[in-house]
Amino acid sequence: MDFDLVLKNGLIVTASGVLPAGLEIGVKGGKISCIGTYLPTSDTTKVIDCEGGYITPGGIDSHVHLAQIPTADGWETGSRSAIAGGTTTILAFAPQSREDDSLWPVLEGYHAKARDQSYADYGFHFILTNPTPTILNSELPLLSTREGITSMKLYMTYDSMKLSDASVLSVLLACRSLGMTTMIHAENHDMISLLISGLEARGHTAPYYHAIARPRVAEDEAAYRAISLAELVDAPILIVHMSSEVAMGHVRDAQTRLLPIHAETCPQYLFLMSEELQAKPHDHFSGAKHVCSPPLRHRVEDLEALWRGVANGTFTTWSSDHAPSRYDHPEGKKVGLVDGIPRFSKIPNGLPGIETRMALLFSQTEACRPVSEARLSLPRFVQLTAGNAARLYGLEGRKGSIAPGYDADFVIWYPGARGKTEIKQENLHHSIDYTPFEGIEVGNWPRWTIIRGQVVWDRDNGGVVGKMGYGDFLKRGRGKVVVGKTGGLPRGMLPEERGLWMDYKPYE
Amino acid sequence: MDFDLVLKNGLIVTASGVLPAGLEIGVKGGKISCIGTYLPTSDTTKVIDCEGGYITPGGIDSHVHLAQIPTADGWETGSRSAIAGGTTTILAFAPQSREDDSLWPVLEGYHAKARDQSYADYGFHFILTNPTPTILNSELPLLSTREGITSMKLYMTYDSMKLSDASVLSVLLACRSLGMTTMIHAENHDMISLLISGLEARGHTAPYYHAIARPRVAEDEAAYRAISLAELVDAPILIVHMSSEVAMGHVRDAQTRLLPIHAETCPQYLFLMSEELQAKPHDHFSGAKHVCSPPLRHRVEDLEALWRGVANGTFTTWSSDHAPSRYDHPEGKKVGLVDGIPRFSKIPNGLPGIETRMALLFSQTEACRPVSEARLSLPRFVQLTAGNAARLYGLEGRKGSIAPGYDADFVIWYPGARGKTEIKQENLHHSIDYTPFEGIEVGNWPRWTIIRGQVVWDRDNGGVVGKMGYGDFLKRGRGKVVVGKTGGLPRGMLPEERGLWMDYKPYE
Amino acid sequence: MDFDLVLKNGLIVTASGVLPAGLEIGVKGGKISCIGTYLPTSDTTKVIDCEGGYITPGGIDSHVHLAQIPTADGWETGSRSAIAGGTTTILAFAPQSREDDSLWPVLEGYHAKARDQSYADYGFHFILTNPTPTILNSELPLLSTREGITSMKLYMTYDSMKLSDASVLSVLLACRSLGMTTMIHAENHDMISLLISGLEARGHTAPYYHAIARPRVAEDEAAYRAISLAELVDAPILIVHMSSEVAMGHVRDAQTRLLPIHAETCPQYLFLMSEELQAKPHDHFSGAKHVCSPPLRHRVEDLEALWRGVANGTFTTWSSDHAPSRYDHPEGKKVGLVDGIPRFSKIPNGLPGIETRMALLFSQTEACRPVSEARLSLPRFVQLTAGNAARLYGLEGRKGSIAPGYDADFVIWYPGARGKTEIKQENLHHSIDYTPFEGIEVGNWPRWTIIRGQVVWDRDNGGVVGKMGYGDFLKRGRGKVVVGKTGGLPRGMLPEERGLWMDYKPYE
Amino acid sequence: MDFDLVLKNGLIVTASGVLPAGLEIGVKGGKISCIGTYLPTSDTTKVIDCEGGYITPGGIDSHVHLAQIPTADGWETGSRSAIAGGTTTILAFAPQSREDDSLWPVLEGYHAKARDQSYADYGFHFILTNPTPTILNSELPLLSTREGITSMKLYMTYDSMKLSDASVLSVLLACRSLGMTTMIHAENHDMISLLISGLEARGHTAPYYHAIARPRVAEDEAAYRAISLAELVDAPILIVHMSSEVAMGHVRDAQTRLLPIHAETCPQYLFLMSEELQAKPHDHFSGAKHVCSPPLRHRVEDLEALWRGVANGTFTTWSSDHAPSRYDHPEGKKVGLVDGIPRFSKIPNGLPGIETRMALLFSQTEACRPVSEARLSLPRFVQLTAGNAARLYGLEGRKGSIAPGYDADFVIWYPGARGKTEIKQENLHHSIDYTPFEGIEVGNWPRWTIIRGQVVWDRDNGGVVGKMGYGDFLKRGRGKVVVGKTGGLPRGMLPEERGLWMDYKPYE
Repeated sequence: MDFDLVLKNGLIVTASGVLPAGLEIGVKGGKISCIGTYLPTSDTTKVIDCEGGYITPGGIDSHVHLAQIPTADGWETGSRSAIAGGTTTILAFAPQSREDDSLWPVLEGYHAKARDQSYADYGFHFILTNPTPTILNSELPLLSTREGITSMKLYMTYDSMKLSDASVLSVLLACRSLGMTTMIHAENHDMISLLISGLEARGHTAPYYHAIARPRVAEDEAAYRAISLAELVDAPILIVHMSSEVAMGHVRDAQTRLLPIHAETCPQYLFLMSEELQAKPHDHFSGAKHVCSPPLRHRVEDLEALWRGVANGTFTTWSSDHAPSRYDHPEGKKVGLVDGIPRFSKIPNGLPGIETRMALLFSQTEACRPVSEARLSLPRFVQLTAGNAARLYGLEGRKGSIAPGYDADFVIWYPGARGKTEIKQENLHHSIDYTPFEGIEVGNWPRWTIIRGQVVWDRDNGGVVGKMGYGDFLKRGRGKVVVGKTGGLPRGMLPEERGLWMDYKPYE
Repeated sequence: MDFDLVLKNGLIVTASGVLPAGLEIGVKGGKISCIGTYLPTSDTTKVIDCEGGYITPGGIDSHVHLAQIPTADGWETGSRSAIAGGTTTILAFAPQSREDDSLWPVLEGYHAKARDQSYADYGFHFILTNPTPTILNSELPLLSTREGITSMKLYMTYDSMKLSDASVLSVLLACRSLGMTTMIHAENHDMISLLISGLEARGHTAPYYHAIARPRVAEDEAAYRAISLAELVDAPILIVHMSSEVAMGHVRDAQTRLLPIHAETCPQYLFLMSEELQAKPHDHFSGAKHVCSPPLRHRVEDLEALWRGVANGTFTTWSSDHAPSRYDHPEGKKVGLVDGIPRFSKIPNGLPGIETRMALLFSQTEACRPVSEARLSLPRFVQLTAGNAARLYGLEGRKGSIAPGYDADFVIWYPGARGKTEIKQENLHHSIDYTPFEGIEVGNWPRWTIIRGQVVWDRDNGGVVGKMGYGDFLKRGRGKVVVGKTGGLPRGMLPEERGLWMDYKPYE
Repeated sequence: MDFDLVLKNGLIVTASGVLPAGLEIGVKGGKISCIGTYLPTSDTTKVIDCEGGYITPGGIDSHVHLAQIPTADGWETGSRSAIAGGTTTILAFAPQSREDDSLWPVLEGYHAKARDQSYADYGFHFILTNPTPTILNSELPLLSTREGITSMKLYMTYDSMKLSDASVLSVLLACRSLGMTTMIHAENHDMISLLISGLEARGHTAPYYHAIARPRVAEDEAAYRAISLAELVDAPILIVHMSSEVAMGHVRDAQTRLLPIHAETCPQYLFLMSEELQAKPHDHFSGAKHVCSPPLRHRVEDLEALWRGVANGTFTTWSSDHAPSRYDHPEGKKVGLVDGIPRFSKIPNGLPGIETRMALLFSQTEACRPVSEARLSLPRFVQLTAGNAARLYGLEGRKGSIAPGYDADFVIWYPGARGKTEIKQENLHHSIDYTPFEGIEVGNWPRWTIIRGQVVWDRDNGGVVGKMGYGDFLKRGRGKVVVGKTGGLPRGMLPEERGLWMDYKPYE
Repeated sequence: MDFDLVLKNGLIVTASGVLPAGLEIGVKGGKISCIGTYLPTSDTTKVIDCEGGYITPGGIDSHVHLAQIPTADGWETGSRSAIAGGTTTILAFAPQSREDDSLWPVLEGYHAKARDQSYADYGFHFILTNPTPTILNSELPLLSTREGITSMKLYMTYDSMKLSDASVLSVLLACRSLGMTTMIHAENHDMISLLISGLEARGHTAPYYHAIARPRVAEDEAAYRAISLAELVDAPILIVHMSSEVAMGHVRDAQTRLLPIHAETCPQYLFLMSEELQAKPHDHFSGAKHVCSPPLRHRVEDLEALWRGVANGTFTTWSSDHAPSRYDHPEGKKVGLVDGIPRFSKIPNGLPGIETRMALLFSQTEACRPVSEARLSLPRFVQLTAGNAARLYGLEGRKGSIAPGYDADFVIWYPGARGKTEIKQENLHHSIDYTPFEGIEVGNWPRWTIIRGQVVWDRDNGGVVGKMGYGDFLKRGRGKVVVGKTGGLPRGMLPEERGLWMDYKPYE
């Protein structure tokens, strides 16, 4: 019972409740060794007095794009930004291009970008754009078990990435047999293409038309299709960055039926609306800063609905979809300014958000507002920002929870209203030149961020105090479903029928 | 007030009610001239005493395949079978093949097959499998206005016919601008392909596996997608031959929201189940007779749900999908018997049913059973078998209704229980060697069928008394929606947004 | 073929379509004798040239309060107002008071008020507030078969009229065995009482608080309960004057399941909102004019939803709920002004509307606006204003339809835009001193109203030309369900169970 | 760091996951003092080696009837039975009778029955049947804060207990202001009364008719009404012992909308069906053993739906509704045998189940069956059997969770399949002469039950080793909602309206 670090006077929040006051956390060897009262300390024990602030698990941001495109954050700036906002684990995308017929070089290339660069622990999802049989049948088994890449993402839209339904099914089958959850970007490609060409033909090319070109029905349809494909082959999926009430309703219905359908949403869809894409008086292209897909939506009713989904359990994860480009840069957002004319379809998609993700959501809990005005509870905050992602993506037992045996990853918040902060670009740590959340006041901000027992962010004393390269690559294990369960039959099957056409073994 | 034909002592059924007893119908020049009491007759007036039987509009079968494939019915036998069963108007498919880059030869070729061959009046829908811009923009306007082909059908499945979402959208856009409703075969192609290959790889090739290879989820997904595509471009559609409760529920929801989404079902999906596809002791291939797509379903609960849809207005039309192949013929169903081994995926799809369609449904009305056991009312029978198809497919004012000014097309039924009949292959008039409805007892059968004032079927005196070639080709006008309305916005649009990307003019 | 009256050059609208142009209607002995072309006329035939205007069935207003309370319209003024607005049949309420233990005096008393007073044909519904076993078992059978009172109304709210669930069930059982549909005012009494007492205790007594005191949840709950009670005993009902989207959704769901659940709505709920109840600068009590129950609703979204229900078939009837009180009269609305202080709970409920009902709805059809902006079609107008009420309330074959054998009751509308009219109190024919629809422009107004072949309203020549007392009392027959069907089982029963506890014979 | 008790080699299950292996629990002074690895022990430390078995929180059975009626279990036998089945906390009902105009004697009387009798810790809910203003406004505040009775139950059915909607509203208002959740028995009383009298009048009085007399629609309606009443006054409720798919669907919909609507179900509704009420060959009255309300249901589809509700989070608690009567006793179930004739309406309602509750559910987790066949996960088991009840009923921080600071209440299960057990009456510890679950095999049974650090049940060494009277009365604090949140508005209100009629302060 000798600890490297003891946290005192904090209120520990888990995915199922706030623990009684007076408990202390003892850390040894980077792991939580003990939770109890009156833990013994020695000279070598570092003690942090939380002064009554909440302690939540270190954040897991499971939807992050780093070093994928020009002017984006690379691993150094991206992970630095993460820890300053309370995120201790980053799951970023290693993208396969259409020409890549093996994932091994993809993996090595992406490892090369991250190695020795990260302030935070990290893992990779693959993005599959060319899922050849060899990749699915020969490479993925090794990559998952030996290299710890246990999740894939695929796209139903974008010319350069879109998979057909047949390809989606083949990926789902491969992933289920390996115990992976497949992440899906669900928008109907052909609908959007029709609108883009129609808008462009009529000269409607300003950034705002991006929001028109991707109406909710495109998301609703694709979400329903993704769920149906998953149901057919009994494979768990997570639909990423959802923004539509109807699409979210399809997820809720699927969960009611116990299908293993997970959903993710992101701060931009709950704090911002399409009006942000409008030209500003001083800068007619400024809406480009808010171009992301799916787009910001038109009506506050949609945002209200999404907040209900955050609270009622429909959403599994709250991620940033950090995918930024610098605004005032010819290889950044301004790619969409062609000869001074805005071309919304050329604007690089994506917003920065890895640093603001945790505080924006924490502000909506009862820690920062009266219970009746809270959008969600503290335990739900933990589920959404850390616990569920850990379980779904194969980090359970190691990340995402404050319990003995887990890595000692924490966010310690200011007690009371002391942490109230206005979000300002000048205070952020990414390499991007704006934040879409500029000027929003959050009720708290991470005071300390701790990774494996080491303080990496100390807001009042030095800010980023972690070291580049401290972050470990995480070989992840098989994930588990968080909602629903596998083992069911698709609509229209009799119980004895599945095995007839599919090498069926239940997931897990 | 001089009539060629007067119908007396009949109970006239319209789409909205049964008219008071005692009314007579006066016919002049092939049209209904007058409905009233005590109509005057002269020596030249033919008088039919209906003896209290119901008079319904001549049936319109709006989903018929004739002369498309080997061993199918051609126009002579198909139309003969139609009139013997109370159908006076046939809308059959003129199919474009993938290589056809113009519809004009398709039309002429199909006219050649039908000309001078038909006992019943008829029109054509095109099947589009290669909707080139020239066809959509240049040919269709002429074909619809000058040639009277005012409806199209397309497929979301089958390798030889499947259109992408993008192509579906382009057809919908073209059809809406011409005031056409688009018929859609909605099943997810990739799901079915996966199942077929999985089943075949495991040696499951008997006819019954056809029903496994096309589970309801494939129909549910495609129906939802079709509705979403139609919503995006504000175009009316009719989803053909629906067989699934969930897919039907999507239609109902769309109708609740006033989308112009129509649905069709067929007798086989309400009278027969997948057990019919099982091997019979004396003939292990006999299930091939019941191979159609979507397939017959497994559970009686589905059939009950469809019957509710028949009664509550979800279904717009009740058609036969007459698409038969002879069973005991090497170019018929037995194409699916390869070296004596059944191969379900090779069996020609489709069932005969043009002759049995009307009687099967009439039997479920209060004319043939106690009100509390009736599946639908007589007015609903008229809507489903004639009135709605006329309105939707551009024959309103001419066909589908018993009202002055309309063509004098009637079915006169036996009074009371006198028409009770067991369906037997030996009594039918098609060229096919079986009926899937063998042995089913129907409560009535058409006693007389009348087309434009001429008796063409007199069951008690000569049977088929019409003449081949009497049937006229119908140049149809623009149809109208039967449910919902156009003019709405797709989910996610603001009212001012549609015109920005689409040359938007409301349908009709 | 000798006619008293021939209508020429009109476009005849039925519940299922607009008949072809060129048809004429021949009337003989007050009934439609013939519909045809080129009808013969003689010297004694009155001919009306409709000049291309639409002819619709005479309106049936099936929800009318006349002569029930002080300052209301009596039969003379009420029925005069009706015909000036195109209503030819009035179904008004004969109310039983709690003390009445027999309906015979109720009937005779109400006959006395109507006899020789009515310009329009008329019938009675009873309001049951004290449904004793004697009334249900002994009186109703005679009253329905001999006196032609074949419908009942009951209330789930109001201290003086509310029935318990047990009483509702006993009425439903009695009515079903007599083939009657039961009308139900569905609001939760206890919820409303709580709100009224809470509001009054806090001094919130202005007319606007009436709208607060009866929130939608009170209607939603009671509607769901009414449907459940009806389902239990397999009895058809009509929920009157619905105003809430959710409650309407319950009806739609019930109809989807084929329960015989009908619904009615009224112009005020689709044209007016709760803001009307606010004090006006010059008259702080003016909101009293718009006090009715359920109240006018707050949000335009509710009105949009109701319009969808009008179009998609959820609503069965469109009635006025004409239940007015004079505004500027101490026994009228001003009863609610106590010592100069408004007391919303004392204000007599109800609005005038019998004269404006038809024109308000007709204005929303394609006769008055582009198809894409029409709220409903002309056939649906006929169903809602006449046809459905006739079928439901036992007047089928006689009223509500333009077909031979039916009473010659018509509304002839102006062709084109000639009938455009602004609604003004000064032009109306009731005895009330305001109209809630003041200033609304309607696209047409009845040009002629005809009852049994007699012109009673000729707007361009004399206005009301009918005679007081011309209206006949209508002994009605058994009605029929318009939606759904009886014969089903309540949730939770096995098929063999109903007969065990109920003398079950299917309705009709 | 000196412990009274250390649990080693167990797998700790919390409401959000299974903790990593190797953790130990240290207990001191009856509370969990520490969770960690390699906890120090001393001579005075009792060590239990769990041998790899799961450790779950001691069960909280929150729906128990003890000592209410003749032949029921009293506190001694009831609580003994509880601990033998892994339940460490009992929340039982202190029933007010209609004549009681104060709750103080009710409380004292019930305390007298329990005092010094209980093997398990316990608390009381009041049943309110006469909620006078004095009780609600004066007594409840004291009873809740001083006496720790922080939950109420009320009935919508039973002549002797039924409250009107108005009374329900007044209870809800009082409870919300005190931070209490109200439990509601939701069945429509008048529907059931009608069926009972109908059945009895026809001589259908055998036990099976109990299941007919209470169809699902009675539960569905009352559940919807209860939810609506709760919504109106923004008060949290829990609907007890739900048995119907549709009613459960209402709860799910309410939760989706974030209403604070909780639901409970019980083993009998998921393991047994109405066929159990049928007469047995040797005993025509045997169905009486299975008479409870709501009744066991007819169709396996209902049970499947309830299992989905167990897994997907719709149900908040899994309780026994232990409310038994001895079968073979003239004051027990045989009260329903009148002169040898069964009279189902006289049979005392209720089943024994306090001892079998935990094992029946545990058997459905992945601890006892393959994951794909598990009905629910272990964390969900903890939520349903302990954690949620603790939170909802004011025991959070003390009971229902394995975390430092909580009472050391545990169930330790056998590792692997060693605990497999067939349920037999002869092995149970209640005073009742049968179990409805006779013969069901469960995959495990509590090996040890521990209350506040004391082993009270040691299955392999002495069985019940606890002491009568060891159980403490629990003064409970204010509960918290588990699903949804308060602070919303009822349907039909504008945001500013609630305060106008209600002394509104948000719950919590």
